[in-house]
Amino acid sequence: MVTSELDLEVRYYETDLMGIVHHSNYIRYFECGRNKWIRDVGLPIEELEASGIMMPVSSVECHYKLPSKMGDVLHIVTTVKEMPMARINVYTTITNKKTGDVVCTGKVVLGFIHSDTRRPTRVPENLAVRLRPFFE
Amino acid sequence: MVTSELDLEVRYYETDLMGIVHHSNYIRYFECGRNKWIRDVGLPIEELEASGIMMPVSSVECHYKLPSKMGDVLHIVTTVKEMPMARINVYTTITNKKTGDVVCTGKVVLGFIHSDTRRPTRVPENLAVRLRPFFE
Amino acid sequence: MVTSELDLEVRYYETDLMGIVHHSNYIRYFECGRNKWIRDVGLPIEELEASGIMMPVSSVECHYKLPSKMGDVLHIVTTVKEMPMARINVYTTITNKKTGDVVCTGKVVLGFIHSDTRRPTRVPENLAVRLRPFFE
Amino acid sequence: MVTSELDLEVRYYETDLMGIVHHSNYIRYFECGRNKWIRDVGLPIEELEASGIMMPVSSVECHYKLPSKMGDVLHIVTTVKEMPMARINVYTTITNKKTGDVVCTGKVVLGFIHSDTRRPTRVPENLAVRLRPFFE
Repeated sequence: MVTSELDLEVRYYETDLMGIVHHSNYIRYFECGRNKWIRDVGLPIEELEASGIMMPVSSVECHYKLPSKMGDVLHIVTTVKEMPMARINVYTTITNKKTGDVVCTGKVVLGFIHSDTRRPTRVPENLAVRLRPFFE
Repeated sequence: MVTSELDLEVRYYETDLMGIVHHSNYIRYFECGRNKWIRDVGLPIEELEASGIMMPVSSVECHYKLPSKMGDVLHIVTTVKEMPMARINVYTTITNKKTGDVVCTGKVVLGFIHSDTRRPTRVPENLAVRLRPFFE
Repeated sequence: MVTSELDLEVRYYETDLMGIVHHSNYIRYFECGRNKWIRDVGLPIEELEASGIMMPVSSVECHYKLPSKMGDVLHIVTTVKEMPMARINVYTTITNKKTGDVVCTGKVVLGFIHSDTRRPTRVPENLAVRLRPFFE
Repeated sequence: MVTSELDLEVRYYETDLMGIVHHSNYIRYFECGRNKWIRDVGLPIEELEASGIMMPVSSVECHYKLPSKMGDVLHIVTTVKEMPMARINVYTTITNKKTGDVVCTGKVVLGFIHSDTRRPTRVPENLAVRLRPFFE
């Protein structure tokens, strides 16, 4: 298991007319968490992409527990539990930093493709080599 | 079953550096489809909200099949299959208008709350009365 | 002078906790208007980009007159008043479709660059040829 | 003069198919800078709004100098140079944190309104009292 943490502050424009963060933004926060995760692992997404690999999203799910609002700081915990093969499953839990309450949880499945051909591939070696120590 | 259709054109700023629509935007397109659906049903979301009811999202899931890109027109089909009670399940299929290929499919579950107290309620009567004919 | 028109409906997620469209979104609506304009001129932006030219934004200004809100339809009028050379000046006026009131006005200046070298260039011939008839 | 600083990391979904941050996002970064500024001054925007005052944007302008891309950290400097009266002029400069190069500069003019009546007012006393020391 390999886990990464990130704090993000809610931005004004991310709230909607209910006065709370629009639900679509958590899907974006998940991505912010994933990009922190892969950088913590040692391979920033821009380096991965420079090596010719992209990670298109295959599916997302998100379960909303509590709203968040302007002024809130969100604590994003991103976890990968299994060594990725053709796909990588990324689990995210977002809590309100101040109260510790769970705001939402989700799972995102991503694949790997070659940027030039757009054809799928297995987890690239430059990422795999950094992940194996966590799963041995 | 009650279904609604909407065509949306991909906007430039909705594409990301992969050159394709960012996955989070489909969650937003789902909402555009739902708002068209509820208006087609006869109760625009702004009227529902004016009547003191909001519909917070409880969960979303989206399965991505094919990318879409600048210049594409998306065809959004929004379907409600059962009479809502405490929650409403909304199914969406997005296809590429030109090719007919499925871009993504998803399901969103929403609740109903009183705007003032933020307490949950069953489907409000002003919506229920418009939906019953479809499910009898 | 060459002008183009586009109607856009306000989307729920574009409103903020003031209950009105977030001011940053009008900058995006300007772009929707420009992309309709260039398509009306006969050269969709994706074709222009396929020909190796991109149009980075050099400056924007926007003057806000009236708010718009969920349910509003916006009427976007995009105008180019002079034949572009190294830059193109695009003027936009957004009105509320129903009331006719001006919501905002703005001006965006864009340049032309070669996609590969990112070096500036003059208005490309495939665009110029379509614009000259309007300015002769 | 009163100045505030904020560092923000570019988010993946903020880039467009040119591979760079979409120009509309800088208008949003300006707002992030303003919200940091007003909090540094001692009156978080959510407190100002709780006191019944909102700050609608009257105009924005932004001059783009250099693109920024995924992985970049932006340094946002927000400055108010005169004591606000009916309006407040906010100047922002965004630089690339690593290189120090200017990415863009801008000016945003905001008014003050009562949330309930939406009528304009002068700078509210809870904000004025915190700003006067900087301008005496």
